[in-house]
Amino acid sequence: MTDNIPPSLIKELAETGGEFYRRGWALGATGNFSVLLSRKPLRLCITAAGSENGTFDDTNFLEIDDDAEILQGFGRPSDETLLHLTIYRLRPKARCILYSHSASGIILSDRNFVDGSISMQGYEILKGLTGVTTHEHTERIPIVENSQDHVAQSHVLQNVLIEEGNIRGIYIRRHGLFTWGETVAEARRQVEVFEFLFEILARTGA
Amino acid sequence: MTDNIPPSLIKELAETGGEFYRRGWALGATGNFSVLLSRKPLRLCITAAGSENGTFDDTNFLEIDDDAEILQGFGRPSDETLLHLTIYRLRPKARCILYSHSASGIILSDRNFVDGSISMQGYEILKGLTGVTTHEHTERIPIVENSQDHVAQSHVLQNVLIEEGNIRGIYIRRHGLFTWGETVAEARRQVEVFEFLFEILARTGA
Amino acid sequence: MTDNIPPSLIKELAETGGEFYRRGWALGATGNFSVLLSRKPLRLCITAAGSENGTFDDTNFLEIDDDAEILQGFGRPSDETLLHLTIYRLRPKARCILYSHSASGIILSDRNFVDGSISMQGYEILKGLTGVTTHEHTERIPIVENSQDHVAQSHVLQNVLIEEGNIRGIYIRRHGLFTWGETVAEARRQVEVFEFLFEILARTGA
Amino acid sequence: MTDNIPPSLIKELAETGGEFYRRGWALGATGNFSVLLSRKPLRLCITAAGSENGTFDDTNFLEIDDDAEILQGFGRPSDETLLHLTIYRLRPKARCILYSHSASGIILSDRNFVDGSISMQGYEILKGLTGVTTHEHTERIPIVENSQDHVAQSHVLQNVLIEEGNIRGIYIRRHGLFTWGETVAEARRQVEVFEFLFEILARTGA
Repeated sequence: MTDNIPPSLIKELAETGGEFYRRGWALGATGNFSVLLSRKPLRLCITAAGSENGTFDDTNFLEIDDDAEILQGFGRPSDETLLHLTIYRLRPKARCILYSHSASGIILSDRNFVDGSISMQGYEILKGLTGVTTHEHTERIPIVENSQDHVAQSHVLQNVLIEEGNIRGIYIRRHGLFTWGETVAEARRQVEVFEFLFEILARTGA
Repeated sequence: MTDNIPPSLIKELAETGGEFYRRGWALGATGNFSVLLSRKPLRLCITAAGSENGTFDDTNFLEIDDDAEILQGFGRPSDETLLHLTIYRLRPKARCILYSHSASGIILSDRNFVDGSISMQGYEILKGLTGVTTHEHTERIPIVENSQDHVAQSHVLQNVLIEEGNIRGIYIRRHGLFTWGETVAEARRQVEVFEFLFEILARTGA
Repeated sequence: MTDNIPPSLIKELAETGGEFYRRGWALGATGNFSVLLSRKPLRLCITAAGSENGTFDDTNFLEIDDDAEILQGFGRPSDETLLHLTIYRLRPKARCILYSHSASGIILSDRNFVDGSISMQGYEILKGLTGVTTHEHTERIPIVENSQDHVAQSHVLQNVLIEEGNIRGIYIRRHGLFTWGETVAEARRQVEVFEFLFEILARTGA
Repeated sequence: MTDNIPPSLIKELAETGGEFYRRGWALGATGNFSVLLSRKPLRLCITAAGSENGTFDDTNFLEIDDDAEILQGFGRPSDETLLHLTIYRLRPKARCILYSHSASGIILSDRNFVDGSISMQGYEILKGLTGVTTHEHTERIPIVENSQDHVAQSHVLQNVLIEEGNIRGIYIRRHGLFTWGETVAEARRQVEVFEFLFEILARTGA
């Protein structure tokens, strides 16, 4: 529960969570959505662990500062809070981070791609990614290993985000996809693009 | 927003869009549905880019003339506006054009079929296509290459529509299916027939 | 439209139709559900062709006698009306016939099974079929060829129904499944059992 | 019908049943959910056979004692009542038992795993299982043969539950998954975790 997150945003996030759950992109999941409240100082709202079935409301959000300390709300923050903070720090335009996991995505993340990333090219739907204007675009999603050492993992993410200026998502192997956007709608549209292509790639063995 | 499109039609299109989205045939998509308002002069309503999640209302429609100029409404017309105009010009009975993209359809569109088209025969559901009275019918959907040069692509479509008098849909490779009908219901039923068969063909390797 | 079909039955059939449509078992379909009104004389209500999207109400039903003549209601009877009549004649307990077609079912129906039928055994869910009390039961669904000669096809069905006293469904190849029951609920539960097993068999190549 | 089951619990179970049905995890099914009313004496509520389509209310529940005798309610208890009783006896914390069956789960249950169990490791979603704090966890679900001799089968389950102190579910081959939890929400979350991983494993042949 936090005073600082507008009801319309809660509604948009809840609608997104319900849709992800319905599609099987959020099964068994604890909360993993966030929105930026301010940059200076860095403040974000993140769903608390235990926001299940894709259903949540304002009581499921915690307000967090840049040390991952809880400023408002009750509950345990998501294990991935440090990863969210890292993404917001390294991507100054990001105002929303969404997490999804599908069977297809996880199957793909387990393949040994030559350059360690899921690569997608030649699909019109890539134009659903902000800034992409042609299907001839190549989009790469780096795959990083999963770890329960969240400090170490946030450093790995930090390095990836610094080295790869153009990526729009990161896949943690056998875990799920982190995507971000300037708005909830943008982040959600990008999740849809990626999950749609994951299904195609997982089914074709590409 | 346009004065000229009846609310019942908006409702029918919105219901269709919601259903396509639910089935995963419109993920990450910007608008790509149109209806014909008049033939002489040629006027159509087309969903504006940015009509997401399968949800839209009258504010998502632009009224367009036969030079693709916006007569009413706000927003950017779909990149495929020229393709819609081409189909209406070459198919005098068409009054609605729908666009769908499924994982199965895109997987199929990427196969190298001998005659460059998706071919379907022997299925009872083909009788859901207007004018088809037996499962022994062979339906072909030509596959054309995708291009961001929409003028060039509309010429390609024009040639296909002239050469192939009997086709009911065109697939743009790795993009999606364009289908048309005299009514929204007819176009939608044909999308359902095609997408159903795409799933079968994609799964069987036929 | 018919006076003789109780509103509660319409509601149950409409709910069933909506569910089949949602699951992708009734895409692109015209009407193909029926209920028995009386045995002597033989009277049935059958959805008219054009009952789309799994949505229908009492206006979509035609009352038919045993010559397939329309007694009440407007519209064209389903192409499969003769098949419904044949099933009611040969299965004296049947009071509801449902039709479904799924991608998995059609894929299966196209395999060359040694005895020309889809065979299912060893699954607990078989106990969802009326009269089956053990998973060790073997259920067979004969596959017959599709034909637009509905008189000839109803004779084929008649022979199958006479020869195979224990079957609970018939698959018309590349068309769909006909199942029946004493009630809508029974017929629907049997469709669910069959379609569930079709998915398993289609995916495993069994 | 039983006086002893709180309406909020009925609602939660009904919502869970509806969701399982929607996902295709409860097709063709008769009732197979239970909650513990008291430990001493052992009393449970279990859905009666015939609770279909994932829809049920308080009239679908029977109150049962530890001899599987009906104390309240009308109808035939589920064939698996003895299995529920066995699980409650051997798992003192369990207060809810859920049953699900998916095509993927049944396909998996039919593979000949070396140690006779479905084994899952390395997936972040395993942390959705109570007590699991790392993806490096290995979760095993023993597979037992199906039998219509429910007394014999409850003995088999009893042995498995005694020998394997850490399991969170048991799969009856070609039948379905039994999972339990201290609450409906916990049991449901565990079903989601398992069914999600079953899809991945069934699709990858692992």
